[in-house]
Amino acid sequence: MKHIPHKTIERLSQYRRALLLCLSKGKDHIFSHEIAKIQHITPVQVRRDLMLIGYTGTLRKGYKIQELIELIGEIIDSKEGQKVAIVGIGNLGRAIIKYFKNKRPKLAIVAAFDSDPKKIGKKFSGVTCYNISDMPKEIKNQNITIAIMTVPDDRTIEIADLLVKSGIKGILNFTPRPINVPDNVFLEEYDMTTSIEKVAFYVKDVQA
Amino acid sequence: MKHIPHKTIERLSQYRRALLLCLSKGKDHIFSHEIAKIQHITPVQVRRDLMLIGYTGTLRKGYKIQELIELIGEIIDSKEGQKVAIVGIGNLGRAIIKYFKNKRPKLAIVAAFDSDPKKIGKKFSGVTCYNISDMPKEIKNQNITIAIMTVPDDRTIEIADLLVKSGIKGILNFTPRPINVPDNVFLEEYDMTTSIEKVAFYVKDVQA
Repeated sequence: MKHIPHKTIERLSQYRRALLLCLSKGKDHIFSHEIAKIQHITPVQVRRDLMLIGYTGTLRKGYKIQELIELIGEIIDSKEGQKVAIVGIGNLGRAIIKYFKNKRPKLAIVAAFDSDPKKIGKKFSGVTCYNISDMPKEIKNQNITIAIMTVPDDRTIEIADLLVKSGIKGILNFTPRPINVPDNVFLEEYDMTTSIEKVAFYVKDVQA
Repeated sequence: MKHIPHKTIERLSQYRRALLLCLSKGKDHIFSHEIAKIQHITPVQVRRDLMLIGYTGTLRKGYKIQELIELIGEIIDSKEGQKVAIVGIGNLGRAIIKYFKNKRPKLAIVAAFDSDPKKIGKKFSGVTCYNISDMPKEIKNQNITIAIMTVPDDRTIEIADLLVKSGIKGILNFTPRPINVPDNVFLEEYDMTTSIEKVAFYVKDVQA
């Protein structure tokens, strides 16, 4: 089970999101072609991913939604849950805290960090903001394994280094500044400019 | 030049970002292996992408940064520039306006939309917020081709439909609710939960 490709993990996360939504609407079974339609991919892709995690539905009724949600949880969540910190409490940091609050029981944002004295000691959607200089101590004490970076460009590299020194295991970097981390730290980077420029390119192409 | 793969377009956008940063630091030439290192990819990938857009450097000095920035601009930007609207002025919408302001001369956020009377008529980082009900009129009058959606989950589908009816050509959907658009509208979806869960999965794997 260890070698599930990155892209499959992303899709499993997206399937679960879609399944939770269907469940909340009172649906109990779903076909691969329905999941495929929601995710804009092919039914074959859905079936391949679910076969990879050992799940097959029935021809007549499709997949059991509740069962599939639990199975995906067993694959992608950790049993004990993981703790997440947000570094940088600007608009984006606050948006993420609000958005992610109570969304996934196994992934909790437990701390925020900033260097602005006006923010330190305050709570943002229930999450306490600490001084960035206390990051090593808090990451250790609270057993935080994942950091989401939403800091200003010019502080990105310095803060990423501090996170690594503090023993963080995974970083999601939302700044436009790419960072380097040692091999034992998992890094995911997302810059919204890339997405905006991609849309703009295809729109231009359509108009031309 | 029409059939550049999606992934290449994303990388060209990222190369330009890296090149602009190097240029601002006074650098004038760069080797493929340097770009590769910043982007965490292979030098072969960089050379393949740049050959695809018809650019080759010299063995001795590498690529001319200014020239390459201009060439990437010719490929991914439109000559006249494109106008972008943000729909939903919560923390995320405001973060995007601030972040993107003056970043790319050919892509300007010219309008924001929200249904909160307290926000309508106000400016956010210089961008006027209009009532969502005025979207069709403003999109047409201001010739807006791209919309970035940062609206609450439960309004996503209705607002996407209104955007399509208003003649929008591309949508970047930052909500966790996947949408459907006609074939002539380009759609890009990004849900931060997917990225957070992906990092969490690999961190769990490292710890296990």
